[in-house]
Amino acid sequence: MAKQTPRTLSGFMELLPAPQRQMERVMEILRETYSLYGFTPLDTPVIESSEVLLAKGGGETEKQIYRFQKGDADLSLRFDLTVPLAKYVALHYNDLTFPFRRFQIGKVYRGERAQRGRFREFYQADIDVIGDGKLSILNEAEIPAIIYKTFSALGLRRFRIRVNNRKILNGFYASLGLTDKAGDIMRAVDKLEKIGPEKVKAILTGDLGAGQEQAQEILDFISITGGTEEILYALESRRGRDETFDQGAEELRTVVKYLGDFGVPAENFQVDLTIARGLDYYTGTVYETVLEDHPEIGSVCSGGRYDNLAEYYTEKKLPGVGISIGLTRLFYVLGEQGMLNPELNTAPADVLILPMTEDLGAAIALATALRASGVRAQLHCEEKKFKQKISYADKLGIPYVIFLGDDEISAGVVACKDMATGEQTKLDAKATIYRIKAGLDARNQGTVIRE
Amino acid sequence: MAKQTPRTLSGFMELLPAPQRQMERVMEILRETYSLYGFTPLDTPVIESSEVLLAKGGGETEKQIYRFQKGDADLSLRFDLTVPLAKYVALHYNDLTFPFRRFQIGKVYRGERAQRGRFREFYQADIDVIGDGKLSILNEAEIPAIIYKTFSALGLRRFRIRVNNRKILNGFYASLGLTDKAGDIMRAVDKLEKIGPEKVKAILTGDLGAGQEQAQEILDFISITGGTEEILYALESRRGRDETFDQGAEELRTVVKYLGDFGVPAENFQVDLTIARGLDYYTGTVYETVLEDHPEIGSVCSGGRYDNLAEYYTEKKLPGVGISIGLTRLFYVLGEQGMLNPELNTAPADVLILPMTEDLGAAIALATALRASGVRAQLHCEEKKFKQKISYADKLGIPYVIFLGDDEISAGVVACKDMATGEQTKLDAKATIYRIKAGLDARNQGTVIRE
Repeated sequence: MAKQTPRTLSGFMELLPAPQRQMERVMEILRETYSLYGFTPLDTPVIESSEVLLAKGGGETEKQIYRFQKGDADLSLRFDLTVPLAKYVALHYNDLTFPFRRFQIGKVYRGERAQRGRFREFYQADIDVIGDGKLSILNEAEIPAIIYKTFSALGLRRFRIRVNNRKILNGFYASLGLTDKAGDIMRAVDKLEKIGPEKVKAILTGDLGAGQEQAQEILDFISITGGTEEILYALESRRGRDETFDQGAEELRTVVKYLGDFGVPAENFQVDLTIARGLDYYTGTVYETVLEDHPEIGSVCSGGRYDNLAEYYTEKKLPGVGISIGLTRLFYVLGEQGMLNPELNTAPADVLILPMTEDLGAAIALATALRASGVRAQLHCEEKKFKQKISYADKLGIPYVIFLGDDEISAGVVACKDMATGEQTKLDAKATIYRIKAGLDARNQGTVIRE
Repeated sequence: MAKQTPRTLSGFMELLPAPQRQMERVMEILRETYSLYGFTPLDTPVIESSEVLLAKGGGETEKQIYRFQKGDADLSLRFDLTVPLAKYVALHYNDLTFPFRRFQIGKVYRGERAQRGRFREFYQADIDVIGDGKLSILNEAEIPAIIYKTFSALGLRRFRIRVNNRKILNGFYASLGLTDKAGDIMRAVDKLEKIGPEKVKAILTGDLGAGQEQAQEILDFISITGGTEEILYALESRRGRDETFDQGAEELRTVVKYLGDFGVPAENFQVDLTIARGLDYYTGTVYETVLEDHPEIGSVCSGGRYDNLAEYYTEKKLPGVGISIGLTRLFYVLGEQGMLNPELNTAPADVLILPMTEDLGAAIALATALRASGVRAQLHCEEKKFKQKISYADKLGIPYVIFLGDDEISAGVVACKDMATGEQTKLDAKATIYRIKAGLDARNQGTVIRE
């Protein structure tokens, strides 16, 4: 028979078993942490009706969408988890209780140009708090606390959550009479690090038609840097010119205060007035998170406060605040950087049982006892040489191997080898299980990510 | 602005938060149980190249496939997890260690005619053990033990795992000289329960051209019922006519013996000689699992032993054994039957904290302490009346509400109300957390499914 060459599409992550175990760990930590903060898990379809999914229309995303016909239906694969959330909340509004806090970890699809480290199918891990009409500022402060907890639980330390408030930016540009051009200006300002202040000034006064004085004010404004208190002080001194600006400065001060109460260390967050994020969508606090040793990969967790989650579906005003982690890309980068902790057990089992008897009854009973104690056990009953079976455990990194022959069975003991130390014990089943569990606990102390 | 009516496609399950929590529990139990048996988690793309996914071609499935073009690429959504596994094993053969034991819980897509309880997007939860060239019979016995453990862990009791061996069937029809018609005969036999033995006999002697004697032998054979030992005995008495038959009978005896060793109670399994499953694919032990009180929904967990997992991709002989649970459908049926345990906590949080002070510092510190103890806590700081906040906890089923006012803070206590009993305590934070954790443990004793 002619064979079809097996292949996986480019831009689609498919992990080998060991890294997949690490990825599962990462997802488990996200689920656990999000749950501790009172977010409920949600799952929505990967496929939606195109008219629903693309209600907002236009934009860069549309070209990348996987869109197709099935029968009469015009269908699309979701390209993020925010639009499906908006649909969900609008559709199930009467069955939900607000504030509605949900997390969702799911695959999304974007037909981007294939390149190293870019994925067409990738996991996003989102949390959002949706209010009905109103939403307390506390939620805006809690979100970076959740980012901090999540990243810490994963084992990351050298990361910084950058915080800003869109009202400060909007108010500032309004006070200069530049509201209409705010979007273009922010895009120009975004290039500051790359092209330097002089060139940014040239763009501002050139294409964007700002006066020399306005341009200088903008440059002065975005060069407000330093510690949190310094920036808040600088903002304080600019109050009184624009109401939105003042409100933004007040909100930022509140968020910073609560961040301290939430225990986010000063070195893990930073007020950064240059951050804008999605130009139309966000209306209050905005966030970016950068890995200090890998600024080149950009923000790995971003989001912010918005006023109208579901404006394309409902008249209801549903303000919210949320963040999204591009999980597949983050995992890929961590792997590339060798930051996945190789000491964590990635084997499919904790114990490999090698029965040395014709009848497998005793071996099966032992496997059952191990599993009942929460130890992952595998029986190896294939027709292989002893050496090959040991090599099997070795290759997979299975930490313990148990030999069970007639001698052991009649003596009521179990021969158990610690594959890392080579140490071998002959103890009864109960003591063996106890020893294995203690050993596994010791091994699984570390975090998934090691810096 | 004109609004787009939000809707979810028909045939796509989208759960409200409370049932979603139950679904997550089910998935967690599957992951845990599968892991205990030494299966490693796997995740493969939802989209595959059509030529790869449809290498086998033909069949009922092809019409149902979501297939589309994106640029030059001819793509399809996976319709099961077996073909992607075959591709995975063939593609990564050199990086895998055999026997390769993997589980996968993932969404698959079939554009079936929409009807109640049928889904176009649904989860399958699969486990497979793949050997390289050979695979021990023990694996065929372990699989129903895993089904038993999984279903028991979910809380199901009244289910029956039906076991047969394809070699018995193939050998039996070969001994009658009916090998060529075996497929059609098995389809006819499959109707036995519906149409009765006389009509089956008419089909056999009519369309299928079997002689009267042959038809009677078939009817006699499939009417071998009773306890496991009776059936094994009846098979024993028919030995010696066909080698394949004898081998199948021997394998079945071995599987039954080990099933006992694995501790599967007699009432949860049954040898059933009428079971055939996928006609071309399976070659040894086959399984079906039925809920005794809901035979109408058919098998909820099926599978078997096959000889050639990846024959469309590789010359390597990769025998295996596996099962698949149609999770979405099973969950739907359990829900419809009212079998999801309503006593399990489906709230997004275990505790709702109502700060009664201007400054939220103390409330935030308490939330942080609760979360550090593994208690899911939510701060409710919205501008709502006290009554509305209590009603929020009530609606969501949040088991505890904590009030934190100036009096409590200065007295170093926390007022905590058990929403089920109405009992209110004023204890320090540590004692309150202790009480809450004890209460949660007591509440979460039950299984997800209650019969």
